[in-house]
Amino acid sequence: MPLRPNRPLPLATPAGVEVLTRILTQGPIPRVEIARRTRLSQAAVTKAVAPLIEAGFVTDQPVAVPADEAAEGRAELGIGRPVSPLTVVADSISVIGLKVTPTDLIGVTTDFRAGIRAVRHQPLTDTSAEAVLARLADLATELIGTLDDPTDPAGPLIGIGVAVSGDVDARHGVVRDSPFMGWRDVPVASLLAEKLQMPVVVSNDVRALTVAEHWFGVGVDADSFAVVTIGSGVGCGLYINGEVVSGAHGVSGELGHLPLAPGDLVCTCGRRGCVETVASSDAILARVRETTGRPELDLSGAIELAHSGDEHAREAFDRAGEVIGSALAAMVNLVGPELVVIAGEGVADYDLYDQRMRQAFGEHAFGAAGDCRLMLRSHTFDDWARGAAATVIRSYVRGEPPFHR
Amino acid sequence: MPLRPNRPLPLATPAGVEVLTRILTQGPIPRVEIARRTRLSQAAVTKAVAPLIEAGFVTDQPVAVPADEAAEGRAELGIGRPVSPLTVVADSISVIGLKVTPTDLIGVTTDFRAGIRAVRHQPLTDTSAEAVLARLADLATELIGTLDDPTDPAGPLIGIGVAVSGDVDARHGVVRDSPFMGWRDVPVASLLAEKLQMPVVVSNDVRALTVAEHWFGVGVDADSFAVVTIGSGVGCGLYINGEVVSGAHGVSGELGHLPLAPGDLVCTCGRRGCVETVASSDAILARVRETTGRPELDLSGAIELAHSGDEHAREAFDRAGEVIGSALAAMVNLVGPELVVIAGEGVADYDLYDQRMRQAFGEHAFGAAGDCRLMLRSHTFDDWARGAAATVIRSYVRGEPPFHR
Repeated sequence: MPLRPNRPLPLATPAGVEVLTRILTQGPIPRVEIARRTRLSQAAVTKAVAPLIEAGFVTDQPVAVPADEAAEGRAELGIGRPVSPLTVVADSISVIGLKVTPTDLIGVTTDFRAGIRAVRHQPLTDTSAEAVLARLADLATELIGTLDDPTDPAGPLIGIGVAVSGDVDARHGVVRDSPFMGWRDVPVASLLAEKLQMPVVVSNDVRALTVAEHWFGVGVDADSFAVVTIGSGVGCGLYINGEVVSGAHGVSGELGHLPLAPGDLVCTCGRRGCVETVASSDAILARVRETTGRPELDLSGAIELAHSGDEHAREAFDRAGEVIGSALAAMVNLVGPELVVIAGEGVADYDLYDQRMRQAFGEHAFGAAGDCRLMLRSHTFDDWARGAAATVIRSYVRGEPPFHR
Repeated sequence: MPLRPNRPLPLATPAGVEVLTRILTQGPIPRVEIARRTRLSQAAVTKAVAPLIEAGFVTDQPVAVPADEAAEGRAELGIGRPVSPLTVVADSISVIGLKVTPTDLIGVTTDFRAGIRAVRHQPLTDTSAEAVLARLADLATELIGTLDDPTDPAGPLIGIGVAVSGDVDARHGVVRDSPFMGWRDVPVASLLAEKLQMPVVVSNDVRALTVAEHWFGVGVDADSFAVVTIGSGVGCGLYINGEVVSGAHGVSGELGHLPLAPGDLVCTCGRRGCVETVASSDAILARVRETTGRPELDLSGAIELAHSGDEHAREAFDRAGEVIGSALAAMVNLVGPELVVIAGEGVADYDLYDQRMRQAFGEHAFGAAGDCRLMLRSHTFDDWARGAAATVIRSYVRGEPPFHR
């Protein structure tokens, strides 16, 4: 299967990047509105847009607007001619996003607006970096095949994103430390790029999800938000002051490793008292097995037991809820987001810790910091893979590595 | 004493605000460099600067540069004429900054660049809001008097800043909850503005300190930083993604109220397990008094005792250091700043908890988040008052309330 050629964006200046970003994340949007929001002159906006239209990334075909709405629009925008809002041509490019978990690989293809086109899952039996990289290459190749459907033409593939939990050096494409995968210093981007002859972007998985929310989700409307993920790990992505928080050294949002649990519990990361020692799904399961004396239980069994009212099983979820609530309070006390999106990996057990979580949150949130909205977002592994695709789209638009311009 | 008239800034556009901000915080700076950093055209920069020079807020008098440096400068800047960097005229305005503590009021006058001109302290015996507001008015009036010195002419006073610990609604100038002062919902800005017939800006004290660091301190060079204050309270100001973090609801950086201490300890704020229950100077003193059985000790006595090697006294500082270190780790795990400035109120006791603090920080900092620099900054109450002045300067330049343009 020959790889499709890369498709360079005709963007020469930071102003061009900002204009395309507005069209991509806030379109359909008229030129005059872009000028207002970016503080660029209308001439500068028009100059940046022209080559994007010429190359087929953006379209400005006039939109038929009902007469009275059009009059209103003209009054609001202060211009005397019909508005031709700009939109991104979704199928001008394709992107692949891959999410790595210890048991499965999840892959999606998306369009320019991170709209999912195809989904493929692949079970994983060997979590060594070598084996996983081979499977990732297979999965990517399978997904590349779906782009060739003549009945549903997709844009050329411009790059592949990979999302992995843990400490990831996104700049150099290296997974520095992923306790779940048992990886240390794995140069995923360069290894996979070599196999596939494609630009590869590697990110922390929660960061990737936050990038997707920033450009294509709640971030379009909220001035600040946190995405909190609960499941095999507890993670957090932050969007503050107009940008996703990346951390000066590439680490941020490590909600699962705040030292809020008892100090005698050792985390998978090796530290003591991390939130995940009581709040990860593994920790909950271990606790239920221990207190019920039923080592054969799996997570669904433990959830079922708790739902049936078993006191020991419920206590494990209560304990998790309490420390998650404390961690949420710690986070809002520090950064005060407008909105907290709680995204469970599967939310089958969410009701089991929801109440205790909200109680602990209420007890420890300081003053008005507790006024943030807590929003539950049902959410699948496909969303994680879509997040990986969003990181590719962002790097591509910004001309960040590996998309040097 | 008649109040001097306000001095409006000739700024009509966001571009003008950004240009003046660059000159103020990064000057001396040439027009071409402002254009480069702000992405404005040189014509737009020149247009914004002209009225500021005309009105005496900015100067561009040519700087005499040695021949070879001048050649280098021209090459670097890509222009063929001598560089005339722009600087703010420090004495074009004056500002008053006031810091409120339960025992003292501290006041300073500063120039446009937050350079301190005069300092006055006033002991406080009555912490009721009414009494403190009367004393604040007295102190401000005394400081206004210092501006009239004919041997050292100061610019006209444009506003007064007040810094108070706790939950402060800066937008409306209301102290919503200050446990140290025992205040709830005190509209400090409007009450003081009425007394003094002057614009008044009220801020959380640590936020004010962070604003000063952002515009006139470490923020000029660091991409992200945290200011951590340790003393009668434990606070934190954050600068991330190009701006001080203010919190969607006005609360952020409440490091002293992370639930990292034992849950049986009740904080002055009424919550359980807050960092301040073991790490505030009052908590340390109470612990030393309790474990040594010496209720007559004051803080200096407790510090002396610990320095002399008393085991009980040392344990209280160890305990504080441990929880402060855990709190620092929690903060860097979440936001990953490049630099953490630790600013003690008085750093006489810093050596007593430094080691245990760094140890706990090292144990709980996650991956590369722990690579941030920890910098100790000796620091006085005058700096808090200067922070209050910096908030006035920022609101004045930005045209934020109470400086509507």
